[in-house]
This record gives sequence, structure tokens and C-alpha cells, in this order.
Amino acid sequence: MIKVGIVGGTGYTGLELLRLLLQHPEAELSAITSRQEAGRALSAVFPSLRGRFALAFSHPEKAALDQCDVVFFATPNGVAMGEARALLASGVRVIDISADFRLQDAAEWERWYKVKHAAPELLAEAVYGLCEVNREQIRTARLVANPGCYPTAVLLGLLPLLEAGVVDAGHLIADAKSGLSGAGRKMEPHLMHAEAADNFMAYGVPGHRHWPEIRQGLARAAGRDVGLVFTPHLTPMIRGLHATLYARITRQTDFQELFERRYAGEPFVEVMPGGSHPDTRSARAANVCRIAVHRPPEGASTADTLVVLSVLDNLMKGASGQAVQNMNIMFGLAETLGLQQAAVVP
Amino acid sequence: MIKVGIVGGTGYTGLELLRLLLQHPEAELSAITSRQEAGRALSAVFPSLRGRFALAFSHPEKAALDQCDVVFFATPNGVAMGEARALLASGVRVIDISADFRLQDAAEWERWYKVKHAAPELLAEAVYGLCEVNREQIRTARLVANPGCYPTAVLLGLLPLLEAGVVDAGHLIADAKSGLSGAGRKMEPHLMHAEAADNFMAYGVPGHRHWPEIRQGLARAAGRDVGLVFTPHLTPMIRGLHATLYARITRQTDFQELFERRYAGEPFVEVMPGGSHPDTRSARAANVCRIAVHRPPEGASTADTLVVLSVLDNLMKGASGQAVQNMNIMFGLAETLGLQQAAVVP
Amino acid sequence: MIKVGIVGGTGYTGLELLRLLLQHPEAELSAITSRQEAGRALSAVFPSLRGRFALAFSHPEKAALDQCDVVFFATPNGVAMGEARALLASGVRVIDISADFRLQDAAEWERWYKVKHAAPELLAEAVYGLCEVNREQIRTARLVANPGCYPTAVLLGLLPLLEAGVVDAGHLIADAKSGLSGAGRKMEPHLMHAEAADNFMAYGVPGHRHWPEIRQGLARAAGRDVGLVFTPHLTPMIRGLHATLYARITRQTDFQELFERRYAGEPFVEVMPGGSHPDTRSARAANVCRIAVHRPPEGASTADTLVVLSVLDNLMKGASGQAVQNMNIMFGLAETLGLQQAAVVP
Amino acid sequence: MIKVGIVGGTGYTGLELLRLLLQHPEAELSAITSRQEAGRALSAVFPSLRGRFALAFSHPEKAALDQCDVVFFATPNGVAMGEARALLASGVRVIDISADFRLQDAAEWERWYKVKHAAPELLAEAVYGLCEVNREQIRTARLVANPGCYPTAVLLGLLPLLEAGVVDAGHLIADAKSGLSGAGRKMEPHLMHAEAADNFMAYGVPGHRHWPEIRQGLARAAGRDVGLVFTPHLTPMIRGLHATLYARITRQTDFQELFERRYAGEPFVEVMPGGSHPDTRSARAANVCRIAVHRPPEGASTADTLVVLSVLDNLMKGASGQAVQNMNIMFGLAETLGLQQAAVVP
Repeated sequence: MIKVGIVGGTGYTGLELLRLLLQHPEAELSAITSRQEAGRALSAVFPSLRGRFALAFSHPEKAALDQCDVVFFATPNGVAMGEARALLASGVRVIDISADFRLQDAAEWERWYKVKHAAPELLAEAVYGLCEVNREQIRTARLVANPGCYPTAVLLGLLPLLEAGVVDAGHLIADAKSGLSGAGRKMEPHLMHAEAADNFMAYGVPGHRHWPEIRQGLARAAGRDVGLVFTPHLTPMIRGLHATLYARITRQTDFQELFERRYAGEPFVEVMPGGSHPDTRSARAANVCRIAVHRPPEGASTADTLVVLSVLDNLMKGASGQAVQNMNIMFGLAETLGLQQAAVVP
Repeated sequence: MIKVGIVGGTGYTGLELLRLLLQHPEAELSAITSRQEAGRALSAVFPSLRGRFALAFSHPEKAALDQCDVVFFATPNGVAMGEARALLASGVRVIDISADFRLQDAAEWERWYKVKHAAPELLAEAVYGLCEVNREQIRTARLVANPGCYPTAVLLGLLPLLEAGVVDAGHLIADAKSGLSGAGRKMEPHLMHAEAADNFMAYGVPGHRHWPEIRQGLARAAGRDVGLVFTPHLTPMIRGLHATLYARITRQTDFQELFERRYAGEPFVEVMPGGSHPDTRSARAANVCRIAVHRPPEGASTADTLVVLSVLDNLMKGASGQAVQNMNIMFGLAETLGLQQAAVVP
Repeated sequence: MIKVGIVGGTGYTGLELLRLLLQHPEAELSAITSRQEAGRALSAVFPSLRGRFALAFSHPEKAALDQCDVVFFATPNGVAMGEARALLASGVRVIDISADFRLQDAAEWERWYKVKHAAPELLAEAVYGLCEVNREQIRTARLVANPGCYPTAVLLGLLPLLEAGVVDAGHLIADAKSGLSGAGRKMEPHLMHAEAADNFMAYGVPGHRHWPEIRQGLARAAGRDVGLVFTPHLTPMIRGLHATLYARITRQTDFQELFERRYAGEPFVEVMPGGSHPDTRSARAANVCRIAVHRPPEGASTADTLVVLSVLDNLMKGASGQAVQNMNIMFGLAETLGLQQAAVVP
Repeated sequence: MIKVGIVGGTGYTGLELLRLLLQHPEAELSAITSRQEAGRALSAVFPSLRGRFALAFSHPEKAALDQCDVVFFATPNGVAMGEARALLASGVRVIDISADFRLQDAAEWERWYKVKHAAPELLAEAVYGLCEVNREQIRTARLVANPGCYPTAVLLGLLPLLEAGVVDAGHLIADAKSGLSGAGRKMEPHLMHAEAADNFMAYGVPGHRHWPEIRQGLARAAGRDVGLVFTPHLTPMIRGLHATLYARITRQTDFQELFERRYAGEPFVEVMPGGSHPDTRSARAANVCRIAVHRPPEGASTADTLVVLSVLDNLMKGASGQAVQNMNIMFGLAETLGLQQAAVVP
């Protein structure tokens, strides 16, 4: 039984992690911290967990996290980088669901996150936890940087093309739409229901923190620097992320077959039949990324542009679901353990 | 392993049943029928189930339902009553999620459902599958009438009061609000997103089919005929049902304690702490009914009116979740088997 | 041309007032204040008003409000009571959309709003701006207390019954459901889209500030103290309020005719045909309260309970629309001036 | 006073037209037809219009449409082409909100709409009613083809670039997201609230009827054939359309200034300040298209890709609002008459 600790368990990714741990046969929650809720029972803070966990939140400084096998950071950015070193030194493995260890380049990280990185020496060691790419390194990793929601959807949708070298890596476009839980549990006017419902908007077009993370992942796959226009949008739903990806074809191939081959055997990537339009609800509360490849009609002057649709639940394959998948890999468990729930539809 | 058949598996209750069966360790789907989708793979009809079931829909007349241990009817009203007799004769047990066997009185049934009842002789045998009331009869029942969503929420919220005889049974009020999946997968203008979103309305105030069903259940508990005003409303959400119940107190008691005692040991009824306001999402995709009891402030001229809040997911404890709970009871399994998922929040 | 000032114009009621003033032929905005946005153009704060107002927000202490004909307070509770006296002394008429002057009894006000009332001497002078009740006093009022959203819907739905003395005034029930803009532009977790969407909940069952306001209005109509159970709920929509009202009949009459007679000639109350179920969208962005009267089926043991449905847009007839209606009455204009927009459907 | 007829007034564009006509000082509704609702009062079919129109629906064959000054077709595709000829012959001017006269090439029209065109000889005469492009021809037009919602947003967002010849016309991308009223009042499973809410999906990626319409408009502006990838998506809102447009720069210029100059003096196109992210609600129920131009950061390998955001209300500037704008132009009225309502926010 894997002893699990969660730091900062009052946000959405923390709550989702709790939901998943409840159904995981080989992991048990040992400690969960929250500065604000220290001392309160989990079920008091989250009525939906009433009767399911006996545990209460601990104060971060008093939790026996060093006695856990693995600690998840479900914290705002900037917390994990301050605490990971000590945990690793105690022999605890760390899965950071925040962004602290996702960029390899400390300077680049600081440019986007606007603070000094507290543990730049760990960046080289941290393994980027996109399971479908780094499975082998994850097995033995002490520190996993769990990918962001947009990066997971965009990377899984573009990687087969870049790895095969069949599109123009200098001009990729990712037009992505996210439900509002993707912004976390923070309170800002445009995230209020009365403002966000029945409304749709782009944001961060001049620059979004997931842009360098996506580019880093794409560049690794392409073996060269890439050009990416990334446009995130808020769409009035709770969960769900839809990336619509555009790439200019440089070499013809059977793209459907290319994707099917790339993800054959992947338990959590579904390449949909050609011509499909996967909807985000088909991934709701499930750990899956669904991908459909569209080829514009032959003869059109745009016949050289491929459209890839990639959908997932931003809290599952885009965050806590993938984090559990990483845990399973790290501890040598079946990768699908505790993660086989079907999507909640309708 | 229990062999399960599903008749009419293309609606919401059928799909929810499939989601639950996927996680049930002691049940396996043997056959699923649909006149319209016969021959198509489950995963083609429901992309969210892709890769999870190898089965295809069968034509109702060709499915080997008589070789199942239990058959669920997830059909529109009027189908189960025509087919139950033959299945029962073959030794198959039947759980009807539709309304065909919910009313004991055939004449009353025909008044509300506007067709002749095809199997009135089975009404006496059918056990009303409200597990918290009829658990013992369910164990041995051949035919279970799975309760409606409104009736489940209203009955669980009022039964302790009527059984204890502490409120005026002649003047009960149930003001209930349902998400739109409660209407099933039928297409009507007021159920369209463009009409139903950002909108709220009462419906069926002059008479709703769940009214006689609720009254029947209340009357059994009260041991007398009851008076009930039932006002259903459509609220712009997918799942979720909230019943706000009003009862005039006739005998003072500790109402919180009354509810806690009544549901002590019930795995799927949560009596919330006094003063709580359970929200429907705390039951989303989970098999639970949450109940909170409110006593208006003392000294007010309305101090004699009790307010009970009762929430559930209309597709879970209000339909398919309860149906699986009934199956577990009927087959001597742990009642909670396959039903312990936490609510999907946010 | 009436010169209009708005204090605190950055909330929802302020924004709605601006929308209405844009279309009002006899009123023009002279000054609008905001401590936070002082100096910024209206169109910068509210992109939807771009190109429509040249004005900028003024600092409250620098705005020439005393040169306005009328000042609206679209502020949080507690502001208007501090500033009304000086404006009235300057000959400016005041319409307070907040709650400061709604209760006649200062002690009662302080019990519910938890602060000392700063201008108790004005409470007697303030006219409660429910136009359908106090039209004559409004004409000459210097200070109008614009009613709350719940009180408007509940009072208009119950007044005809109490005025006619045909129901039990001691046991009224108002089960009310509001869209989230009713909570104002404040930020609380349960008002976030990711928490409030696809969710429904009661709140404030043990006590809500609109309860004494409603009771005060009902008592005036009944000529006696009344008993009221008031249960507000949050429903996942932006605008809209639906009150479902229950009253025990004490004297039979033609209730439909009673309502039609009471509101004959009222431009902003629509008594719907018997048996109607008005939906909130039929009042969206329009200054109207729609009311339907339902009589439960004869012969039922509950035939003595009347169900009244009352719907409005909480920002229109429930706030700023009614405020403009009050202004029209106060300044001797046609009551409907600038208020005849049809509801935005769908 | 312009006498207005509406054919097929029971859909969303018809209802929106009615809402606008109520506030139009120079137009009055003379006749409205509906095969299905013939004889029923408008207010019975649309409760939101109760008390506003005395008229009832007429049977199409009995309405005196030939005595109108202008007839709007708010019908499904395929109706207007059968009836326009006779009306024109009677001297009635026609504004077709459906798609019958939008494509100049009958063969192309038939390819996309799958039926024989009934009045190909009128295609040459029909003026495409994008006011910002064809204002002069609209003045004298007998027959105006009111543009589709996607085409309006995409064309207004791309035209300045093509007219100025500063982007690669061979590789344009329009990633567009629409609220569900854009699909009209038809009933399909994926348009139901329980399926569409909290969900996001692309559709019609292999081909959508608005694709040839957009290409035709772009080609006219570019003076050459263009390449366009068009990806429409359904987003869970009632109204609103957001087009995210990508174009590869071929000649540097001040793009912000280019747009401001192109739309200077246009009453219904708002070029937002550089760096803006207009949201769809800022156009809700208002006749406006808001456009923001984004230039990716210099130095990036994608510095040559321009991102343009274009939002509107699909029923207003995307349909009935623009239709009234066309009427105003055709009849020599002020173009803004009856169309100056501010957006309904929140």
C-alpha cells in the first residue's frame, strides 16, 4: 500500500486527487496539508467526501510528509520548488501538479512565472510527466513534473506529426478552449458564474505560461526549435479542454494510421475513427485524451493543412488523473490501476 | 458473475447503467437491446465507452435475454409491462427503471399514463425498489419497480417524519427542482440548450406522474392517505435534483436526531449536519441522497414549519445507481458493491 | 432632461442602470462615481458600453452629485445611508437600490444588517418603491427605497391574496430561486462558475435579509403580522428569479380574476393565462413580473392550497428597471418611458 | 412607416426580428406567417411578447404579404427561393435571412444545399447584405441576401487584411465558436441541454455550408481565389459567436491602424484597443461586431502570424440585427435606427 501525502489539498486538483485515491486499490492517503484548513476534517471542507475519509487537514509544518512514499503538490505555483528538496532528501518521491519543474530552463521559467526559482538544480533531474513520451524515465524518477492541461492536449495531438517529421514545425497553431476549473479555485471577476456563463472569450493571446511548456515539448519531439501560435480561450463549462490544432503538411502520409500506430497500446489515448468530432464530455471525469485527425477536402487550396482535434478533462488527463498515472508508473503498478472509470455522460 | 441484460440501452439511464457496470466486480453485461441501434457497437453509439465494451446492440427480438440472471428495463414507459411476464417465466429477475410497475393500483396507473396496463397481475408482486424502505422484500423479489427520481428524493426526505407521526400528513409540500437529464433523451423545444439554459421554470403544476407515486409511498409510511402539493421545476443543469420539503409540525421532537437515527447504517443516505445546505453537485455521479433538516427560528409565527432539503443525482440514486443497489440486494451481494464512487466535484 | 447621478456604478445594478439610461429619452447621465475606477472612462471599465458614453468615473468626493436632479445608489448596503441626507438637503432626490432604507424599523434593520443605521430619521420618510403599491407616495417622495429582487417577486405574487383576505396569512411559503447576478459582483467561492454551474442549492434557510423586508410588505397588505417561510436558492443562470408561492385558501373566490383585476392597468405586471408556467427568460432583460395562479385539482386533500408562480429579471423589475420606473413616477413622466424593451429570448 | 412582413416567424431569427421591430420607430409589423401556428396570437406562441403585438400568425397562403413594403424571410433554407420572385414582381422588397441567395453560383449553392435552386436567375441580382461592404448596392437592392453568422464575423475580421493585400490569402484559418441558437430552433440530440451543456465540440470540419459563403466574400475582397480552413465549434451558450482568425503576414504595416481606418465611421463595427480580448457577452443582444487585432511577440518564429478576434451575437449582427440594418439602408433611414441597444451584461 503506497502511503500518499498531498500538499495543498483544497484546490480543484487536490480534490480530484482525493476522488481518485478513494478508488485506488494500492494507495492510501496518509497526510494532507492546508495552511488555511488545518485541523478541519476533509469531509467538513468537502461535503462530497463526507463519510469517505476519516483524515483531517494538517498544518504544512506539522504533517509527517517525510513518512510518505510519494507526495503530490496540488499547490499554487511557487510552493513545490521550496519544499521538494527536503522531501527528496528524506527518500520521498514527489509528483508536482503545479508548474514549478515543468521547464528545463530556469531563466525561461523565471521570465514567465515572475519569481526566482528556488531549486534550479532540480530542474535537470525533474522528469516531465507526459507518460506517453517519458514512461521509461518516469519509472525511476524521484521528481515528476506533471504536465499542464493545455500542454497535455496539444502535445498529444501534435507529437506524432513532429516525431514523423511530416509537417512544418515552424508554423504550428494551437487554438485551445478550456472549461473554467482550469483556472483553479482562485477568484477573479471573469471567473464568476454571472460573468463567465453564456460567454466565450480568448485570453492571454500575447503570451500564456503554457506556451513555453508546449514549445519545449514540441521541440524535443521535433529535434529542433518550433514555431507555435497558441491561443487559449475560456468556454463556459466546468471541466473539459478542446485543442484544435493546425499544421501545414510537408510530407504526405496516412495520417490516421500514423496516429493509430503512435498510440497503439496506450491505455489513455484514444485515436478516434477518421472524421470524428470528439466532444469534451466524452472525457468528463475520465483519464483519457481523445484525438481525431481531419484532412481538408482534396483539391482545395488548403489541402495542405491538417486539422487535429484533441480533447481531455483538464482535471484528469490534464492534471490529477495523469498524476495518478505517473504514480502508478513510478511504483511499478499497472498503469491503469484506479483510473478506469468511464466518462460521466450525460 | 451476474449476467446482466439491458433492454433499451440508448437512453440516459441505460448509459448510466453501462458506466456503473464497467466498475462492478460481480456483474457483466451479456446483452443489450435497441431496436434502432441493433447491430452497432456500443462504442460507436456512445463514444465515451470506446474501448470498454466489445458488445454490440442486439435487436430486441433476437437478444438472448432469457439467459440473463437479471434484466434491467431502461426503456420509455410502456415497454417493460409487455415483456416482464415472459422473462419472469424464464426465471430471469427484472428491475424496471421505467414507471410501469411503480403504482400498485392499475386504474390509477392508467389514469396517469394514459394507456391500458399490459400486466396488471404483476403489480401486486412488484416490489417498489426504495431500498431504505423495502430492503427485505427486495432480497427475494422477482420484479423490482425502481423508483422515480423525484419520488426517491421526496420520500427519503419525508419518510422519517411520517413514520414518526410528527407532522401534519394532510398538508405536505414538495417543491422540487430537476436537471434536464431527468426528462430523458427525448427531444422537446423546452429541453433544447438554447431554450433551457439560463432559464428556470415550473412545469406540470396541475399534475405530474410522480405525484401519485410519491403519495403512494408517503401513504404507506403514514398509514393513512396524505395530502401533497408537488411542484416540479426545470433548472438549467444536466444532472441533479433538489427537493425542498415543507411540513407542519404536530409534535415536537429532535428532528435532526430523528433523521440520523432513521438512516443510521444506510450506506447511501447522508444526513448532513444541522443547518447545512447540500448542493446537488455533492451528489453528482454518486449514489447518494443528502438530507438536511432546518427548523425555522423560534418565536417566529412559522416556527411550526419544518424545511427539509433533499438532494441526489437523478441518474444515480434517482435511477440507475439505485437500480444497481437493488441488484446487489437481490443477489445477496454487498449493497455498496460498485457504487462507492465519490461525487464528481467540481 | 433629467440629470442623473449614479453612486457606485461598477456593480451589476449600476451597469444595468447605464444600459437603461442609454435608451431613456428624458434622462441623461451627469455623473457616476467609483472610488476604485475614478478617472477611468466608462467604456474602459465596461467594454459593452464602448462608444456609448463619453463620461469617466469620478471620485465620490469630487463628483458634483448635488447638481443632479436624482441620484441612484447602486452601492453595497451601508453607503446610501451615509450620503442621502446631504443630497436631500441639496434638493436632490434619491433612489436607493441598496437595502439601506427598505425597513421602517431601525432596530430590525440593524439586527439583519449588523451595523448601526446612519440615518434612522430618514426611514420614516423613505417610500418603499414597489410601484404597484406605493405609486402615489412615490410621486412626491424625496427618498425612494427600491425593493429587493426577492421581495418584488414574492410581494407581487402574494399581495392580491392578502389584500383580499382570502388566504391564511399566518402560514405563507415562498420558495424562491435566483440567478447568480442576484448576489452582486462580489467574489465568493460558491459564486464561481466552476462551483455554481451545473449545481443547485438552497442558502440562508435559517435567515435571509430579504425575509424581514418581505414580511413588512406582506404585513402592510394584510393589515396584520404574517407568518412566512422563505427559502432562497441559487440556480445556475445569470439573471432571473422564480418565486413559487404557497398559500392556504381561507375563502373561495375566482383567483385568476382576482389577480387580473388587481393588476389591470399595471404596465409591468403580467397576469398569465390560468395554468401557465412562465419561465424566467420571458422576463430576461425586460422590466416585467409575470404571474401565474394555479389551483390544485379539486377533490384532492390539498385542494385548499394555492400555488402562485412569479418570475422576473432580478436586475430589471428586481432592481434597476424598477428604479427607472420609480424615477419616471417621481418626475411625472410616462411610467413606461425607456422601459418597453421586450425580453431577450432565446 | 414601413410595412413589414415576416415569413416563418417562429424560429429564433423571426423572434429576434420581432423584438427589434418593437423598438423600431419607423417600421411596423403588418403580417407574419407560419404554417404551423396560423391563427394563433403572437403572444400565445411567444409569451415574452405578451401584450406587445395584437397580431396573429397568418397562413402563408393567406397573408397579404404583397401589400408590405418589405418582407423578411426567417425561414429554413429553401423557402425564400420559391417565394421571392412573386413578391419582387409585386414591388415588395425582400430581405432573406436564410441562405437561399447568398452564393452567386447556383451550382455551388446546389452542391452545398443538396437541392435544385428554384430561382437561379435572381442570384445575380441579389445583393449580399454585408453592410460594411455593399452599402451602396443595398440602398437600391430589391433583394438582399442577409449574411450568415459565421461569415459576418469572419469576413469583418479578415477583410481589411485582404483588401490591403498584406497577408497570404492562400492560407487563412478561421477557428470559430458559436452558441447553440446558431443552429436554429431545430431539434437534434446534440443540441439538447443535457447533451450540449458543459460540453464543447467541433463539428462540420470536413465541410460546412458557411465555408463557400466565406470564401466567396474573401475572394471578392482579395480579388483572387483564397485558401481557407474553417473549423466551426459548438460552445455551451445561447447566443454569441467568437471567430479566432489566423493569417500569415506578407507585408508589414500598422495593423491596428489598418483596422481602425477601415471601420472608421462604421456604426456597428468596434475595433477594440490593441491587446483586447473581447468577450461574446459584450455583444449580447446588441448589433455590433467587436474586433481585436493581436500581433504575436516579436522575435518569435511565429512573428509572422496575425491573430484577429472577432465577436458578435449570432442572432443580431449575425442575423436579424443586420437584417434590420439592411432595411434601414434600403429605405433611406438612419442606419442605426432601432438598433442602438447596449449589450445585455451581465
